[in-house]
Amino acid sequence: MHVSADRLVAALVEVLPADAVLVDDAALTAAGRDTAPLHAARPDVVVEPSSTAEVVAVVRTTAALDAPVTVRGAGSGLAGAAVPSRGGVVLSTRRMARVLEVSRPELLAVAQPGVVLTDLDAAADEHGLRYAPDPASSAWATLGGSAATSAGGLRGLKHGTTREAVLGLEVVLADGEVIRTGGRLRKDVAGYDLTRLLVGSEGTLGVITELIVALQPVPQTSSTGVAVFDDLEAASRAVTAVLAAGVVPATLEFLDHRSITAVEDAAHLGLDTTAGALLIFGDDGDASAVQRSLEQIAQVCAAGGGRDVVVAEGAAQAEDLLAARRCALPALQRLAPVADLGDVGVPRPHLAQAVHRIGEATRGRGLDVAVFGHAGDGNLHPVLCYDPSDDGAADAARATWGEVYRTALELGGTITGEHGVGLAKLPYLELQRGSAQTALYRRLKAAFDPGGLFPAGA
Amino acid sequence: MHVSADRLVAALVEVLPADAVLVDDAALTAAGRDTAPLHAARPDVVVEPSSTAEVVAVVRTTAALDAPVTVRGAGSGLAGAAVPSRGGVVLSTRRMARVLEVSRPELLAVAQPGVVLTDLDAAADEHGLRYAPDPASSAWATLGGSAATSAGGLRGLKHGTTREAVLGLEVVLADGEVIRTGGRLRKDVAGYDLTRLLVGSEGTLGVITELIVALQPVPQTSSTGVAVFDDLEAASRAVTAVLAAGVVPATLEFLDHRSITAVEDAAHLGLDTTAGALLIFGDDGDASAVQRSLEQIAQVCAAGGGRDVVVAEGAAQAEDLLAARRCALPALQRLAPVADLGDVGVPRPHLAQAVHRIGEATRGRGLDVAVFGHAGDGNLHPVLCYDPSDDGAADAARATWGEVYRTALELGGTITGEHGVGLAKLPYLELQRGSAQTALYRRLKAAFDPGGLFPAGA
Ligand SMILES: Cc1cc2nc3c(=O)[nH]c(=O)nc-3n(C[C@H](O)[C@H](O)[C@H](O)COP(=O)(O)OP(=O)(O)OC[C@H]3O[C@@H](n4cnc5c(N)ncnc54)[C@H](O)[C@@H]3O)c2cc1C
Ligand SMILES: Cc1cc2nc3c(=O)[nH]c(=O)nc-3n(C[C@H](O)[C@H](O)[C@H](O)COP(=O)(O)OP(=O)(O)OC[C@H]3O[C@@H](n4cnc5c(N)ncnc54)[C@H](O)[C@@H]3O)c2cc1C
Repeated sequence: MHVSADRLVAALVEVLPADAVLVDDAALTAAGRDTAPLHAARPDVVVEPSSTAEVVAVVRTTAALDAPVTVRGAGSGLAGAAVPSRGGVVLSTRRMARVLEVSRPELLAVAQPGVVLTDLDAAADEHGLRYAPDPASSAWATLGGSAATSAGGLRGLKHGTTREAVLGLEVVLADGEVIRTGGRLRKDVAGYDLTRLLVGSEGTLGVITELIVALQPVPQTSSTGVAVFDDLEAASRAVTAVLAAGVVPATLEFLDHRSITAVEDAAHLGLDTTAGALLIFGDDGDASAVQRSLEQIAQVCAAGGGRDVVVAEGAAQAEDLLAARRCALPALQRLAPVADLGDVGVPRPHLAQAVHRIGEATRGRGLDVAVFGHAGDGNLHPVLCYDPSDDGAADAARATWGEVYRTALELGGTITGEHGVGLAKLPYLELQRGSAQTALYRRLKAAFDPGGLFPAGA
Repeated sequence: MHVSADRLVAALVEVLPADAVLVDDAALTAAGRDTAPLHAARPDVVVEPSSTAEVVAVVRTTAALDAPVTVRGAGSGLAGAAVPSRGGVVLSTRRMARVLEVSRPELLAVAQPGVVLTDLDAAADEHGLRYAPDPASSAWATLGGSAATSAGGLRGLKHGTTREAVLGLEVVLADGEVIRTGGRLRKDVAGYDLTRLLVGSEGTLGVITELIVALQPVPQTSSTGVAVFDDLEAASRAVTAVLAAGVVPATLEFLDHRSITAVEDAAHLGLDTTAGALLIFGDDGDASAVQRSLEQIAQVCAAGGGRDVVVAEGAAQAEDLLAARRCALPALQRLAPVADLGDVGVPRPHLAQAVHRIGEATRGRGLDVAVFGHAGDGNLHPVLCYDPSDDGAADAARATWGEVYRTALELGGTITGEHGVGLAKLPYLELQRGSAQTALYRRLKAAFDPGGLFPAGA
């Protein structure tokens, strides 16, 4: 057991402005969970530092009292990684939300961790630039939180995920030391690549207090197309055929039958509710290159049994076609009090089989299941819809997730493609990585954080 | 001091076939250096394991005797990273040179570490695929060595470096445990990103015994263009203008005046030897997209003072235009017994200033200096040409490198863009990364290799 809440708060108000130390019930409750439905806890105190120096003060003060620190961005994470399961301090980056620099000649931005992704994009846009990673949560997710989870998004296939976008970090370590990893250059191999080690480390190794991220010129144009398939097998084969044809579009998404019917019920987009799968493809860049890329994909889809193939004419129709994908989660959320969103990955050729086996895993458990996701990456988002007040429903969901993870691993995949491990998948990490590797994770964690100030990573 | 060479050899022949344990003078001398001119040593023994199990046996046997292990690919490294400065065992991957799998639907290959890059490319080519990283040494550099140094190359600007290409690794750790990091998927955030931590770790954390690497479809076409500038400032501004215009070509290289004259002397390509700089640009992909991209670059160059702008018509002329870049190092090697090739990075806007200051750093030291490199990445290769038998020449080179590194850091850059730290730059690493970070490097190294079996990383 760590120090009492009172002593902790007393020590923190010594080093922070009084209004940056929150102990009211609303603040403690809100900071006790992220967007994972099955995990919640309650911190002793929430702090909102405004500078790296204040973060250092929080870390040193809390470490001295042997209490834990959990970093929090927007709390949009889906794995429970921001849940303060040991109590102690939640360190929110809410007040560190400035874009410090946008450099057009260097195609980069320097920003604080609490910047919301759409705010970064707005700042970049003033210079004709954009930030490539676009998780569906970008209107509220923070840059620090998306770096700490290596967030993906809808255009990751061509433009990569957060891992590829982060060039450098300023990080406050558990002992209060401040390091700067990476830098302003895309090519820099001096020393161990701590930047990529910290990206995706989910707040377990240190507090990210500043980021240098790559930007790209806003593409001249972007467009979207759709194709309907009788079954997911055909859609999955079409995805492989598109990439094998040498076309790597920005976006290559799928919805399964249950997702399609839920979206149509909710949004009345005129989707064919008899379809086994919907593929949505999009590209961006030079106008004629985009046109050609979409035409090629449309052809490959048609040749592979796709019907009702449409390529958008103009930006408005492109947005309409993307709507089905954007609506998927909100539509499923209407089906039950909880729409528990998962995130596994499998090699592309096993996509259809994975969806099939996920369906089997839920059978007889009283859960409604739909699957959509990033087909081009083999990254599936199964959604389990249920009412947690139903007897045994939460347990059924937990058991289903266990089977889903095992299925993904049996097919040569991963328990998490982009949402992270967090509390939700920590029990399954060793199944994927093996005991020698998780033991190494723990030694590595101890090299950063010997006292266990931040949450455990393995 | 570690165990005697005799005991070491006796123990190793117990666990390896006799012909896989080399102690002849030629083998020991050859394994004592890589391609860095100023560093050499002599191991006690060279081993050539053929399998992961044999690597494990070497590691366990050597660790038990407290002798050091230095891993060796082709020895083409330019930083002295493969030099066995503490003696002991050199572990060569020469006999682990099989391409195990090429998957067209998954766009990846699985291969052993001793595979030479051009052999990997040949295997990929049978499936219409290629491996994107293309260091100029690809005809002899190994996949393991290029992963351990995160090698770059001529098409890194658009296609990334080895860091982006490696998806997963099998690694033998210092305690003989075998781990598998990453996997077959591009998106996988389960656990710490050990794949990218190991890429670029220069054999200091473990032995890479198998790699999964991303491949891409062979582009439909590739082409090249050149432009001549009166001075490097104008060329550098053109580079920034090209990227700011939203064109990210595969290749954007430069040669300074001294490189141009050396190439022309050696190869008689008809280059304008009065030019201050030569830009060479290239792109690959869809034929019409490549054509448009090169036309755009040609226009930007012409608008920025570029003259004699040529875009190749056909593959043969494209190869001719690239010849100047490919000849640069061989041409400079004719100038003196040693052509010591450096590798610093600076933010693109400081490229011309960096070259200028590198020239100043050599002034009065009796060294001939030329600079060429990857302009699009801000990655410069200064070459110091001298005769090491001249009194004080090697010392002058060492002192010059020190100034070059300091210059790169003052301009916000790096002491190494793609060749790595090795023995050559180890004394400068802390200058770039700071003492808190190099202390962390050492703790991290200890988490992998507490006994110091492999070379030091910081
Ligand atoms: C509707 C919805 C859609 C989503 N879509 C996507 C998607 O398309 N792709 C995707 O990848 N994810 C998606 N997510 C998941 C989530 O939004 C992303 O992972 C997001 O990037 C998390 O950012 P956050 O600021 O909310 O982080 P939080 O949830 O607050 O924290 C996430 C993790 O990061 C750590 N952390 C936060 N800030 C820092 C910091 N400064 N230093 C160190 N550690 C820190 C926390 O400790 C925690 O471990 C979605 C979530 C929702 C709710
Ligand atoms: C003419 C020439 C041109 C070059 N051009 C480029 C270029 O364009 N871009 C570029 O980036 N580099 C370039 N290089 C540098 C060098 O070729 C590359 O870094 C190359 O990838 C090294 O491969 P190698 O097999 O020779 O490795 P080695 O030199 O044998 O070893 C390099 C490092 O990797 C480690 N290592 C090797 N194999 C393994 C393994 N299996 N497991 C763990 N560690 C291992 C070694 O211990 C050492 O630290 C060039 C070199 C030359 C001589």
